[in-house]
Amino acid sequence: MSFSAVDHGFMARALQLARRGLYSTTPNPRVGCVMVRDGSVIGEGWHEQAGLPHAEAVALNAIVGADGTAKGATAYVTLEPCSHFGRTPPCADALIEAGVARVVVAMQDPNPLVAGQGMARLAAAGIEVASGLLEAEARELNIGFVSRMTRGRPWLRLKVAASLDGKTALNNGVSQWITGPDARRDAHAWRARSCAVLTGIGTVRDDNPRLTVREVQTTRQPLRVVIDSRLETPPDAAVLEGGHVLIAAARDDAARSAALRARGAEIVLLPNAEGKVELAGLMQELGRRGINEVLAEAGTRLNGSLLREGCVDELLIYQAPMLIGDAARGMFGLAELSDLAGARRLNIIERRVVGADFRIRARFA
Amino acid sequence: MSFSAVDHGFMARALQLARRGLYSTTPNPRVGCVMVRDGSVIGEGWHEQAGLPHAEAVALNAIVGADGTAKGATAYVTLEPCSHFGRTPPCADALIEAGVARVVVAMQDPNPLVAGQGMARLAAAGIEVASGLLEAEARELNIGFVSRMTRGRPWLRLKVAASLDGKTALNNGVSQWITGPDARRDAHAWRARSCAVLTGIGTVRDDNPRLTVREVQTTRQPLRVVIDSRLETPPDAAVLEGGHVLIAAARDDAARSAALRARGAEIVLLPNAEGKVELAGLMQELGRRGINEVLAEAGTRLNGSLLREGCVDELLIYQAPMLIGDAARGMFGLAELSDLAGARRLNIIERRVVGADFRIRARFA
Repeated sequence: MSFSAVDHGFMARALQLARRGLYSTTPNPRVGCVMVRDGSVIGEGWHEQAGLPHAEAVALNAIVGADGTAKGATAYVTLEPCSHFGRTPPCADALIEAGVARVVVAMQDPNPLVAGQGMARLAAAGIEVASGLLEAEARELNIGFVSRMTRGRPWLRLKVAASLDGKTALNNGVSQWITGPDARRDAHAWRARSCAVLTGIGTVRDDNPRLTVREVQTTRQPLRVVIDSRLETPPDAAVLEGGHVLIAAARDDAARSAALRARGAEIVLLPNAEGKVELAGLMQELGRRGINEVLAEAGTRLNGSLLREGCVDELLIYQAPMLIGDAARGMFGLAELSDLAGARRLNIIERRVVGADFRIRARFA
Repeated sequence: MSFSAVDHGFMARALQLARRGLYSTTPNPRVGCVMVRDGSVIGEGWHEQAGLPHAEAVALNAIVGADGTAKGATAYVTLEPCSHFGRTPPCADALIEAGVARVVVAMQDPNPLVAGQGMARLAAAGIEVASGLLEAEARELNIGFVSRMTRGRPWLRLKVAASLDGKTALNNGVSQWITGPDARRDAHAWRARSCAVLTGIGTVRDDNPRLTVREVQTTRQPLRVVIDSRLETPPDAAVLEGGHVLIAAARDDAARSAALRARGAEIVLLPNAEGKVELAGLMQELGRRGINEVLAEAGTRLNGSLLREGCVDELLIYQAPMLIGDAARGMFGLAELSDLAGARRLNIIERRVVGADFRIRARFA
């Protein structure tokens, strides 16, 4: 499939529109659409939140120009138009009815059970259909939605704030503040785009974090998930304020769970053979609940468990320009290695300055 | 003092020439000189090594053009011309005799006892003298020489190769190779510019390094310094090959020191009250020996001792894209902190990609 420079420009615009839904579309994907006729944009749209119209419908409604219709137009859509009745009618049908002549999509529906059906429906109606333009960018934008559709589990980013020598907290638990205000604000933006923010009972005890989005504007707060095998979260913990909290435990305790439920928390029991929370099972459970992206903000031990159990897809590391020394807590509690061949290799996907700190994003090689 | 764009250009050229001596001038500073008349370069020079002519003499000798002299020329020199008789006659006198009309220097002689005397001599002879052009660059180029002249001790760079989670070796001592071949080659360039490469007995035992410059071209090998309180360096250690080794010990042992001397090593005894090597004293000793820049390549413990005892001026960190986990050895063995206020704050002076790894240079804030 080859695309013109003009095609690239309009799809880039559609992706830009899609990004406006970064904090709000969950559990739906972020989608943008641009309608073009005779080289001019006649309508644009993006999906804002579940229950509201899809990007294609918004763009069709927004059409202006000579006849007020999309007849003969090209639609650039960042995700294959849907072909099923959900909360809104199928977008493929809407595009056909509007008389669109050509549809360019960045990527197919990631759900392997439906992928290509929207495009097939368009093609069957005589519309020219092309796919794969700026596909990598479109996949990145919906990396969590793609993960949930293809693997049944969310995309998990593990955030770590560390000193240059890899220390995340003192031995007495003190970790506030290793990184500066710009890094904290930046981390709130990663929270805002996440469907859930996950932590462990150790962090609840040491830092008593709220885990809400405060430093960027958002219309939605992520679900807060606490991994707390023995239901030890104090009922007055800051993380419980305002509800919308899921506590993953390994065994029930009637009194404790009653107290936590009274504070608005939901409790799921997911024990593994060692009497801890089955982390991979929790990821599947979050997937079933429509969670696309998870931001984990935990301590050395839970970080290590998430890594060991294969739950981590991406590292989001903030590195502060300071040395703390080897006596303090490190980033990842992992089993001791006897050979460097056992080290986990990473692909660094981004490095950037954030205020006085440095942000590194990495995925596994 | 204000300088023209033309002045800046010629001094930048002089600094470029000076850098040619990066690996060879020790214990002398790196110095470059450009002679200019009527806007044209009529001669250039740089100091190559101790005992060979200074940059000004080289440039005067290289003069070409109408009359073959420097009459009425401007001399751009990266360091104040000397006014004393050393192994070569005073450069200030040579410039006066050559009839130079103006001398622009990047920085004064850093030795506070002589600073300004070369310029005063020139001014007394009626030459227009100006100082401070690209001074910061000139100081960086001779940061070790400046350190030795002003503090009596070398500039110490501490090199650390670590994983992204700050691990420098496994608990069994394995550390080869955390970083890749590009980082190793880069580290050899830092060795090549150093007057001495310093390590500890732990690294000698674990890695048995040669500590020579091999991966870049050089005419000179740095002094190798081993901190070995109890003279435990094995006589067949690779670091002893080829001689030019100084072993700093805390107590003598006749048999061991004889065996090490037989291998060509020199031994200095510098005990502190704890029966270890007095590191600050060793720095002074290296200063007395004309050592300008030291590259320390050691393990967690010696790294920590050097930091604690105030011997580290700069960190040269190579960060490899891998995770090793908290059970392995860290970067700096420092005393446990109870408060983050005790963390050592850094100024990051450079970040760059080196092959698959990342290089971070930092100094203390």
